[in-house]
Amino acid sequence: MCQLLGMNCNVPTDICFSFTGFQARGGATDVHADGWGIAFFEGRGARVFLDPQPSCRSPIAALVRQYPIRSKNVVAHIRKATQGVVALENTHPFMREAWGRYWIFAHNGNLLGFGPALDGSFLPVGNTDSERAFCWLLQRLRQACGATPPSHERIFDVAREVALEVGALGEFNFLLAGSDFLLAHASTQLAYIVRQAPFAQAHLKDEDVTVDFSEVTTPDDRVAVIATVPLTDNEDWQTMPPGTLWLFAEGEPVRQAATVPGAKRKAADAAAGDQERS
Amino acid sequence: MCQLLGMNCNVPTDICFSFTGFQARGGATDVHADGWGIAFFEGRGARVFLDPQPSCRSPIAALVRQYPIRSKNVVAHIRKATQGVVALENTHPFMREAWGRYWIFAHNGNLLGFGPALDGSFLPVGNTDSERAFCWLLQRLRQACGATPPSHERIFDVAREVALEVGALGEFNFLLAGSDFLLAHASTQLAYIVRQAPFAQAHLKDEDVTVDFSEVTTPDDRVAVIATVPLTDNEDWQTMPPGTLWLFAEGEPVRQAATVPGAKRKAADAAAGDQERS
Repeated sequence: MCQLLGMNCNVPTDICFSFTGFQARGGATDVHADGWGIAFFEGRGARVFLDPQPSCRSPIAALVRQYPIRSKNVVAHIRKATQGVVALENTHPFMREAWGRYWIFAHNGNLLGFGPALDGSFLPVGNTDSERAFCWLLQRLRQACGATPPSHERIFDVAREVALEVGALGEFNFLLAGSDFLLAHASTQLAYIVRQAPFAQAHLKDEDVTVDFSEVTTPDDRVAVIATVPLTDNEDWQTMPPGTLWLFAEGEPVRQAATVPGAKRKAADAAAGDQERS
Repeated sequence: MCQLLGMNCNVPTDICFSFTGFQARGGATDVHADGWGIAFFEGRGARVFLDPQPSCRSPIAALVRQYPIRSKNVVAHIRKATQGVVALENTHPFMREAWGRYWIFAHNGNLLGFGPALDGSFLPVGNTDSERAFCWLLQRLRQACGATPPSHERIFDVAREVALEVGALGEFNFLLAGSDFLLAHASTQLAYIVRQAPFAQAHLKDEDVTVDFSEVTTPDDRVAVIATVPLTDNEDWQTMPPGTLWLFAEGEPVRQAATVPGAKRKAADAAAGDQERS
């Protein structure tokens, strides 16, 4: 199992604090030592830092931890290889361009026997199930939308169809981001928190680091952080019920739906009902 | 005018020495202060480091300078903005995936009134002439090759057509790299050197740094370095005649052709004849 970290904000925000705790999980406080990566949207542009080395001793991770890049949408991933060798081309997050926009994807899980009929518009460079799933998702989006750039709603609807279909093959926790949204699919394990005024202190689980967000924010700031396992031990993280898809925009969840068929779906709907914000 | 730097090798090699001199041109020894970027192929994978800050004071450039990433193909760029604001999405090099391979592109020049008929398979995210030219080149490649990944020869031929056509609109010096080749188009200014045994000392022009390559190489190593302006002051750089396209593979030029029509072409062919290695 890998670890996912996402951030969606209403103002460009640095992720140094959360990344400090997250980074420790790549070989120090946890076993995910098969590389790591992080992608930042800044305006329409995106920067992706990738390292096939464990994040706990990566000089690139040290840079990201110290260099405050301000972004409204961030996706990070620490890898525990299940499919595909440890190599740069198999290191998440993956990036593609479609409709003149960058798309970023990271996956935590394992899809068994997943061989989608890719038409060549997006093809994997490496050999992970994850990159195949990303290409499949973009292909489905392109088939659904043609030349018209998809709205958040359309992205959500197509991602939900794909989550239902691909999720049947195994664990399919993923984060998908564009410059102005972050989509999070909790297949088995994912949690989130929304930080907004009044801001308080937060203390990392994985390192003895505390930050007082009231000192580094303005009253209008709103930041959603999504992680496989909560990053702090003194805040109220929300568990995302298994089988739910969430759309975050401007620092809060704005839409949510179940991605499991039948009986399980009812349970997921019920469990997540009080989170519905759309 | 921007500055280009490329490297093509027969064994994975770090670019720390050349990058040290190149980096100084981003605002210290030269005026190209509108951001910079560098892309490394490692196997099929690629890492792109981008920074809209001047490279001479970029913490990411400091990391790249000190952290030896070994690569067979590298493309770097320091920007002096001509078209498009200073922003991450306009920072070279640009990356796209096609045929399950990554493609990296950087451009030095200015194309006037360049509005190619892009069909949507590759679209620019920013608003530079350079990214439009990259998308156009990939679209032309896809039109020429369909679902079949293009050979080096096919890439060369299509790039030559595009260089002839687009080069008529202005300066079009560019580097295009895949995991196993580097294509260099000298529209107005580009030079290269091939370093191979017996290796000697090299001294940077832009900083007082010397390296003895005989201490850091094996006898079989071969490294081609391509730059807008020679990076060292004690080596024999070859000027690439204006209007020539060069294919580098395994650390040496393997094919070359003129990209100017008519009379100019003859001159370019004659000037470059002795470099022909195909």
